[in-house]
Amino acid sequence: MNQDKLTLIKDSIKTVPDYPKPGIMFRDVTSLMENAEAYNASIDLFVEQFRDAGITKIVGTEARGFLFGAPLAIALGVGFVPVRKPGKLPRKTIGQSYELEYGQDTLELHVDAIEAGDKVLVVDDLLATGGTIEATVKLIRSLGGIVEHSAFVISLPDLGGEQKLEALGLTITKLCEFEGD
Amino acid sequence: MNQDKLTLIKDSIKTVPDYPKPGIMFRDVTSLMENAEAYNASIDLFVEQFRDAGITKIVGTEARGFLFGAPLAIALGVGFVPVRKPGKLPRKTIGQSYELEYGQDTLELHVDAIEAGDKVLVVDDLLATGGTIEATVKLIRSLGGIVEHSAFVISLPDLGGEQKLEALGLTITKLCEFEGD
Repeated sequence: MNQDKLTLIKDSIKTVPDYPKPGIMFRDVTSLMENAEAYNASIDLFVEQFRDAGITKIVGTEARGFLFGAPLAIALGVGFVPVRKPGKLPRKTIGQSYELEYGQDTLELHVDAIEAGDKVLVVDDLLATGGTIEATVKLIRSLGGIVEHSAFVISLPDLGGEQKLEALGLTITKLCEFEGD
Repeated sequence: MNQDKLTLIKDSIKTVPDYPKPGIMFRDVTSLMENAEAYNASIDLFVEQFRDAGITKIVGTEARGFLFGAPLAIALGVGFVPVRKPGKLPRKTIGQSYELEYGQDTLELHVDAIEAGDKVLVVDDLLATGGTIEATVKLIRSLGGIVEHSAFVISLPDLGGEQKLEALGLTITKLCEFEGD
């Protein structure tokens, strides 16, 4: 990947200390998106990576996954499918729960949004523990979708998400890394 | 605007009766986004409309506003700024409350996301009563941003949002209308 673009992207991401709670260094992609050059560079690099991968649908998780998945779907000329919190999708859904630090949460997907054989790219802003992406991959595969690739603006490799997704058989494309958190 | 594209867009929007509650006919843009041709057509029409409007930033409201505002920002080569529910934005924000059918809610915007003189296009999936867009416009203007234009995939003109936004001095671009709800 183009090193100047990667540097621009990483430099545009602001770090907010102690958010959402003390001790966490929050990596904020909204500062990247405000910067037109950096935002375009992030989508360009994803397009380069996946232009010839035969992707037929992009799935993004609520809500920051929409911010990179939706433009990438338009740029690749494929459909976009949102994975959302319970009760947000109006048609018939399937759900998958996943573990949080304390307790658990659920993600939902429209049952008619993925066709058997769809080649799905999963996109999110940040890969941390990988819990939401693992749940998303399970939802897509239960409908017969093929998921081989995932893409993130930021990875926090210390948190174990990369190993979790590799164990699911996914490639991981990331535009920058931070230590942490 | 191209009539074939407008027809494709309207036809791709599924109607879900009695969602989120009895008596409401919910117009579902997720079915549009799943259809690559319809989704691309919607962004193309917005690009045509605003390519020469001197827009410097796009603001979209959580969460469905991200799905059209983000790709349009990339296509126009400008920054994207999210307006979110309380507690979701990590840096310093300003807030604006607005009326719901029962009670009220608040939207927030990062104070450093809009510069004085920015020419801002406000984008959302659907215009109903216009309450969230009115709050969004107040937030942007309080930071010195100039808001003259708004864009929606769907308008429900029976619900009064168009008059509310015209009273704020905004033009309204819409790709389809439904009788509402």
